[in-house]
Amino acid sequence: MKLTGQSLVAGKWLGSSEHGEFQAFSPAGNRPLETLFFNINREQLNTAINAADSAFLEYRKTSYQQRAAFLDCIAEQILLLGDKLVAQTHQETNLPLARLQGERMRTVNQLKAFASALRTNPDSPLGLKIVDEADATRTPLPKPHTELNYLPLGPVAVFGASNFPYAFSTLGGDTAAALAAGCPVIVKNHTAHPGTGELMARAALAAIKQCAMPVGVFAMVQSKAYATSHQLVAAPAIKAVGFTGSFNVASTLQATIEKRDEPIPFYGELGSINPQIVLANKALNQGDEIATALCQSMLMGNGQFCTSPGLWLIPAGCDELEASIARSISSAASDTLLTPGIVKTFKRQIIQRNELSAISLLAKGQLTEDFHANAHVFSCDVDNYLAQPLLREEVFGPAALVVRYDSEQQLMTMISQLEGQLTASIHGTQDDLAKAGHFIEALQYKVGRLIQNQMPTGVEVCGSMNHGGPFPSSTDVRSTSVGTNAMLRFMRPICYQA
Amino acid sequence: MKLTGQSLVAGKWLGSSEHGEFQAFSPAGNRPLETLFFNINREQLNTAINAADSAFLEYRKTSYQQRAAFLDCIAEQILLLGDKLVAQTHQETNLPLARLQGERMRTVNQLKAFASALRTNPDSPLGLKIVDEADATRTPLPKPHTELNYLPLGPVAVFGASNFPYAFSTLGGDTAAALAAGCPVIVKNHTAHPGTGELMARAALAAIKQCAMPVGVFAMVQSKAYATSHQLVAAPAIKAVGFTGSFNVASTLQATIEKRDEPIPFYGELGSINPQIVLANKALNQGDEIATALCQSMLMGNGQFCTSPGLWLIPAGCDELEASIARSISSAASDTLLTPGIVKTFKRQIIQRNELSAISLLAKGQLTEDFHANAHVFSCDVDNYLAQPLLREEVFGPAALVVRYDSEQQLMTMISQLEGQLTASIHGTQDDLAKAGHFIEALQYKVGRLIQNQMPTGVEVCGSMNHGGPFPSSTDVRSTSVGTNAMLRFMRPICYQA
Repeated sequence: MKLTGQSLVAGKWLGSSEHGEFQAFSPAGNRPLETLFFNINREQLNTAINAADSAFLEYRKTSYQQRAAFLDCIAEQILLLGDKLVAQTHQETNLPLARLQGERMRTVNQLKAFASALRTNPDSPLGLKIVDEADATRTPLPKPHTELNYLPLGPVAVFGASNFPYAFSTLGGDTAAALAAGCPVIVKNHTAHPGTGELMARAALAAIKQCAMPVGVFAMVQSKAYATSHQLVAAPAIKAVGFTGSFNVASTLQATIEKRDEPIPFYGELGSINPQIVLANKALNQGDEIATALCQSMLMGNGQFCTSPGLWLIPAGCDELEASIARSISSAASDTLLTPGIVKTFKRQIIQRNELSAISLLAKGQLTEDFHANAHVFSCDVDNYLAQPLLREEVFGPAALVVRYDSEQQLMTMISQLEGQLTASIHGTQDDLAKAGHFIEALQYKVGRLIQNQMPTGVEVCGSMNHGGPFPSSTDVRSTSVGTNAMLRFMRPICYQA
Repeated sequence: MKLTGQSLVAGKWLGSSEHGEFQAFSPAGNRPLETLFFNINREQLNTAINAADSAFLEYRKTSYQQRAAFLDCIAEQILLLGDKLVAQTHQETNLPLARLQGERMRTVNQLKAFASALRTNPDSPLGLKIVDEADATRTPLPKPHTELNYLPLGPVAVFGASNFPYAFSTLGGDTAAALAAGCPVIVKNHTAHPGTGELMARAALAAIKQCAMPVGVFAMVQSKAYATSHQLVAAPAIKAVGFTGSFNVASTLQATIEKRDEPIPFYGELGSINPQIVLANKALNQGDEIATALCQSMLMGNGQFCTSPGLWLIPAGCDELEASIARSISSAASDTLLTPGIVKTFKRQIIQRNELSAISLLAKGQLTEDFHANAHVFSCDVDNYLAQPLLREEVFGPAALVVRYDSEQQLMTMISQLEGQLTASIHGTQDDLAKAGHFIEALQYKVGRLIQNQMPTGVEVCGSMNHGGPFPSSTDVRSTSVGTNAMLRFMRPICYQA
């Protein structure tokens, strides 16, 4: 399975070194990997876009059963890539093998969940079709027959994330949702795992052939040039964009999208500090337990989850809880981060925070290798937090900030000052929660998922999941990127009247 | 019921002549009406926005039953305005009394329909709540309890339309949908019917008092200054915008919205030429009937419906059908249009079309008064249509263009070249329709509502209605402005996990 370094365009592998090339990076070895990947050029990308546009004319006519079979086949083809897929991704990300195997299974199950949803309601996406029968006897005018159903939007551009090389990447949630909806997909592959992307594209191509789908229904584009992304989202044939990544990249894409004649949906998932609120009795009576849970959740994947808990609100004076946090963190081993750029940003943010007089370092973990990131937990009180806008920033990596509140009023102020988040958790005893109605009422307007007594990491893939949240955690709060409702991102209503 | 000319801000009537004033216009008398209306100033509008933001904190907590009672009460208060409301609107619009009485009833029923939808599912908007039960025995990890539900977005800005002074204006569909969703509303009243807007705001205020709702839950703003609209949509507290009006005004509002830090939904309904496709047997065998129906639909409200049929595709060589159109149109009486601006634009567009060599005048109606608009129907063949981009423009008023197709292929080309539309109709005998599957398949991707053998004017208010369509007919194809699903414009999902 030698990698070609090329892009998958209209069923063909295209690309050569003349338009620039790039390499993936081994976080474990702290060195570039050998394989060369080739920037797609303007003309090749246009070919992919035109192929998607043509494929749409055919693919939109496929029955839900046909689409379900296609999604199942993609899932199968991913599994057929076998251990070589996981080995490749491990090289490119240094995420643990067990984690990658789990994420692969989640990605496969995600594809199957959409297939199953399509089969369950084979002419009514998610059962949302509505029929109002005609009534010829109605006065003053007869009532027509009207039926509400849903159509796919058209070709979709998907930008994968570095931190979920399967579940939020080449054949991840956005791709699965768009294909389920009836939309062709062009994935701009993440440059942190281009080899993984190539293997996934092979799986997609095998499924296209096996299911006799139009070749343009899926394309995978390799490029380290920003111009590629902008060309893609500016193309009139593209009717929606799914993106998981940083606020800054999202802003530049959004600016390009706003220059289009036709406005299109931009579903960007950007970042979140996922506040964890620990209520009084919980903090006093189960301080050790909650401290351990917070630290474990934050250290998971070395802090590289979009739902990593980065802000811990605890009552002032809980010395045992804080001591417990310090113990957990001090003994934590360091690990790699996904890319040299992420390591650099993490280290810069840690230096910044070490220099801030408003906060102090509560504990830090071991640093085994210079190029690793080690855990850091800082602490401050509410007034210091509110006075320092920098502290609202997400630190992508193993870092968190403990903020001590000294009254219910201070906690309420903190909640009201929060920016939009993917998730927040509230941890309390039964007694705590019985008195926390006003906190919960306020907190729900800040988040896409509100959790009681559980950690935010670990996102269920199910019909009732919502992954997304108020800006700036995502750019369109009206939709989810996880769960079968994600199909609705790429569909729109139509009424048939007769 | 003397009009004050003021705006309703936080439950108070504010405004004086110091920031500019304007008058409504009598289309029938071709002269300004006497009452002076006062431009709201910056500070007063800020008061309204702040009041909406505060009201949201209370209003979002109301139960669905409370909101339903509030909507029903608004409906009642509209009826209590009695004939004076209709008389005022008739003065300002010269729409026929019977039409206004009908539209008033539709507006009242629209409010009641949302109330009924809220009562039917008192903790699950439109029944969309999803629950996935916990499973503590699942391996490797227990399954949490997750519930998907919906929250209101926050304060909404609504821009009413001139052509539906009730149903798409001050207390029209967007306002009703937003209030049902749990969002306070600030209406920028249309300057073509400011007196109507003031009376409607009185009805809303009476309902606010009767239902003990927070005063900021509804505001009505009078202003002829563009700056007012831009200040409103730029305000950080505003979380969504509903707009019915012209492409040009929508574009300037969209540009202001794009400059915001936080992206918000912009639901603009802009315009549509609502293509009418007449198939071969229908045209040959029922030419007279279809000609009459097309002319009646187009002349309804003197062509001032957003669903007015402006493009009629008929087979070439149907001389009887064309002769029938010519007879209907020639005998049609002229009438007023809503505003002097609309009359001016209509006359300019007619002159433009008379000067085009690509099309010819098929028939025109009588012109009784200089300031009236009289019906015009032009005709051309497909090649001429495709060569002249100007013909894609909507003519707001009593005008239509007959385009003759000489083959199925030409008709398919026309369909594929259409811009996005609110509606299209396909008229055919059973035999015609049995062979028209490929036309219907293609046409559905161009429209928000696809109609068989009926005219597009007259929009049912029901759960299965969709009013909206691909750009440029609306700015967000994913939602409807008519029917109970319109509530979803102003809500967003949240997952509760425990």
